[in-house]
Amino acid sequence: MAQQKKMVEAITSRDVDFAKWYTDIVKKAELADYSGVKGCMVIRPYGYAIWENMQNDMDRRFKKTGHENVYMPMFIPESLLQKEKDHVEGFAPECAWVTVGGSEKLNERLAIRPTSETLFCEHFAKVINSYRDLPKLYNQWCSVVRWEKTTRPFLRTSEFLWQEGHTMHETAEEAREETQRMLQVYTDFYKETLAIPAVIGRKTEKEKFAGAEETYTIEPMMHNGVALQGGTSHYFGDGFARSFNITFTGRDNKLQYPFQTSWGTSTRMIGAIIMVHGDDDGLVLPPKIAPIQVAIIPIAQKKEGVLDKANELKNRLLDKDIRVKLDDSDKAPGWKFSQYEMLGVPVRLEIGPKDIENNQCVLVRRDNREKTIVSLDDLEEAIAETLQKVHDGMYNSALENLRSKTFEALTHEEFLDIAENKPGFIKAMWCGETECEEKLKDETGGVKSRCIPFVEDHLSDFCVCCGKPAKHMVYWGKQY
Amino acid sequence: MAQQKKMVEAITSRDVDFAKWYTDIVKKAELADYSGVKGCMVIRPYGYAIWENMQNDMDRRFKKTGHENVYMPMFIPESLLQKEKDHVEGFAPECAWVTVGGSEKLNERLAIRPTSETLFCEHFAKVINSYRDLPKLYNQWCSVVRWEKTTRPFLRTSEFLWQEGHTMHETAEEAREETQRMLQVYTDFYKETLAIPAVIGRKTEKEKFAGAEETYTIEPMMHNGVALQGGTSHYFGDGFARSFNITFTGRDNKLQYPFQTSWGTSTRMIGAIIMVHGDDDGLVLPPKIAPIQVAIIPIAQKKEGVLDKANELKNRLLDKDIRVKLDDSDKAPGWKFSQYEMLGVPVRLEIGPKDIENNQCVLVRRDNREKTIVSLDDLEEAIAETLQKVHDGMYNSALENLRSKTFEALTHEEFLDIAENKPGFIKAMWCGETECEEKLKDETGGVKSRCIPFVEDHLSDFCVCCGKPAKHMVYWGKQY
Repeated sequence: MAQQKKMVEAITSRDVDFAKWYTDIVKKAELADYSGVKGCMVIRPYGYAIWENMQNDMDRRFKKTGHENVYMPMFIPESLLQKEKDHVEGFAPECAWVTVGGSEKLNERLAIRPTSETLFCEHFAKVINSYRDLPKLYNQWCSVVRWEKTTRPFLRTSEFLWQEGHTMHETAEEAREETQRMLQVYTDFYKETLAIPAVIGRKTEKEKFAGAEETYTIEPMMHNGVALQGGTSHYFGDGFARSFNITFTGRDNKLQYPFQTSWGTSTRMIGAIIMVHGDDDGLVLPPKIAPIQVAIIPIAQKKEGVLDKANELKNRLLDKDIRVKLDDSDKAPGWKFSQYEMLGVPVRLEIGPKDIENNQCVLVRRDNREKTIVSLDDLEEAIAETLQKVHDGMYNSALENLRSKTFEALTHEEFLDIAENKPGFIKAMWCGETECEEKLKDETGGVKSRCIPFVEDHLSDFCVCCGKPAKHMVYWGKQY
Repeated sequence: MAQQKKMVEAITSRDVDFAKWYTDIVKKAELADYSGVKGCMVIRPYGYAIWENMQNDMDRRFKKTGHENVYMPMFIPESLLQKEKDHVEGFAPECAWVTVGGSEKLNERLAIRPTSETLFCEHFAKVINSYRDLPKLYNQWCSVVRWEKTTRPFLRTSEFLWQEGHTMHETAEEAREETQRMLQVYTDFYKETLAIPAVIGRKTEKEKFAGAEETYTIEPMMHNGVALQGGTSHYFGDGFARSFNITFTGRDNKLQYPFQTSWGTSTRMIGAIIMVHGDDDGLVLPPKIAPIQVAIIPIAQKKEGVLDKANELKNRLLDKDIRVKLDDSDKAPGWKFSQYEMLGVPVRLEIGPKDIENNQCVLVRRDNREKTIVSLDDLEEAIAETLQKVHDGMYNSALENLRSKTFEALTHEEFLDIAENKPGFIKAMWCGETECEEKLKDETGGVKSRCIPFVEDHLSDFCVCCGKPAKHMVYWGKQY
């Protein structure tokens, strides 16, 4: 018990210091480590296994919606990056630049991709000729670099892993549909796989992606009421196509510009999982992406038959494609309980001599510590059912957190009061002017518009900031 | 038929101009395209799908042998790269260097990883403390950069995709076993998945990896008799561990240095597939990694019932997890035959009104054009069997090519004669001196030692070059 206590003590409490609690989990659950390059992280096996499970799930969803994976180079010549004016203004300031190749100074600097719209456009210009070549529905899994001053593992790092979808369509309507479709794919993934509810909607002009006509976003809320931009989907119109001279012969035999989208999510989703679901005992992982779904802890494992039975149960679960780990190390059961709680393993299975006598075992849910005793005859069904319950329980807790920390502000005073005293989202009316967004941000130390939801409540007729007629209801909040 | 002819004509014949034939296939089968950055390629959907299938297969083999995936940063500070003397000498000349981050000049240049031994060592130093932390069996899927002057898609590009395994062990013996184990995993993968036979063995001092004590290699032979270094596995001893001060407390309670390996394969394996298996009609893909394993071509598809039946067959094969494509476009069957031959699809399935009447279909193998008529009742079994036959046929053809183009040279004169007149591998005795390797290379315009095989034939007592006593039998050959 001494060791168990020591382990738990090593984590800062979530309510005492959220930031420290976060980095404690990253470290103690061995998700990531710092590297010698400022702002870059090492993703350790347990963290990477979570990412692989996310990738597999998302990749299936992308392929099901007709997308193909490709790989573009990591380098963008400066002149290529400059082809779209808004885009280069948004990204050039945070690029890492290669200036020497081998032993020679390069004639032109190469940016390491911060995002790959320009590279995809260069390629699209070559491979799109006719309407028969459309749509092009591409996705890429890779790492990107954005030079950051202050960094935090998974949330903001100079290099991170992500997927970026890039598509080209014959008509604006099709491209708009794609933008919405992929936002929906992200929303489904967050709900069905990560057990994370979120607010979705359109970004304001001020907050949209550099070069996009419209940006849509999924905004989950962390346990402490702070938002995380969880994924974005952009509609570009034909702006990049014009800048890059991408044309196709249409059905009417005339040259036309295609319409474009892009959409992306990243390893920052691992940060979201920590901050939405974690607790003072460590990670709490959604069963669908947990590298270990069931940890089998033998009790009195030196007693005859215990390890044999534990192994038998392990093999039964493996046969059902359940990711299971049997810990038969010589550590005490209490230490193991604590260890797999830290790792966020959704279900713990305890099996000891008495259980074996009674043809049963004990299941303990990670999310709410609920214990059930199940007959070994029904093990597979019981585990499947429990994993589903854990998922649902996690989703509902997160939804409850999101709901209880979403407030309405009808007046400027109310807005400032909530911003100061109640961490979370604020729903408030807005006139549509960037000035008001900036003013609110300055007054509140960082509350920004999250998005304009697809269905807006009509809270009042007036902007919460300037009092002029309101155009939209906006979700506001601080962000990571 | 006009279109079909045009398509086939567009490929240079393999025997007329092997290099042009190669790039024609890369282009016509839409595997890759050039990018605006010299030496970098775009891997297109069909090429990337081949890579994904390779990755999935290899990743399973790596995990089965106990390895875990991780992700290290892409940047290596110059001082970190310099920690191991031989290593930096080997790689620094071909590094791309980042000198500016955001708008600031960096204090220290960052190399984009050409390989990640140094990054792994930096991390190992932090996470290895006790013999209980060993072995560490890590692998990473990523892209690396080596600044190349002359490049060719998949074979030699400034950026390429690869996997790099990095492991640390308690004893030299365990590390040596790992080096051999992973060479064997590669050899099995080449044979079982890529249908490619190869010569395996140890590299000479001159040809080994920068910083390694021993390098092992798998050397498949391309159709034209030229070798391709298909994968390497390195034993480092404790050299890097000493340079990076990686120590652990051993079972004897004393501080010790761990023993290290690394091993890698890359997208150049796609080049190997093209050059080992391809023919004048295009790609010939091994069934295990073919994105499309069976192409269904309906004959007289406008006749009632043909497309329905074709769809029924497609769904039956999908149910067996066979990657199948039904081409019901309005192109002529002849054009489609030619198209799927170009794409290297292992099996073509033809189904027309007469076939339906007779409850049969026609299967055509891509590798040898063999046609068989099979009953629709036995379709699934017939397809599975045919795919296996294609695999075996491809392997045997490649083996026959390797055997028929492997020659023995007993004298210096014979060596030079074979090098000039018979493209392929030369087996010849060698004294062990680098001087002789260099002399033979100069005299032959590039014939280098490929490897010292595990089982050496004793061809004579004397070095084929200097006539001094021979130490080893070596495979020699030109390489890509």
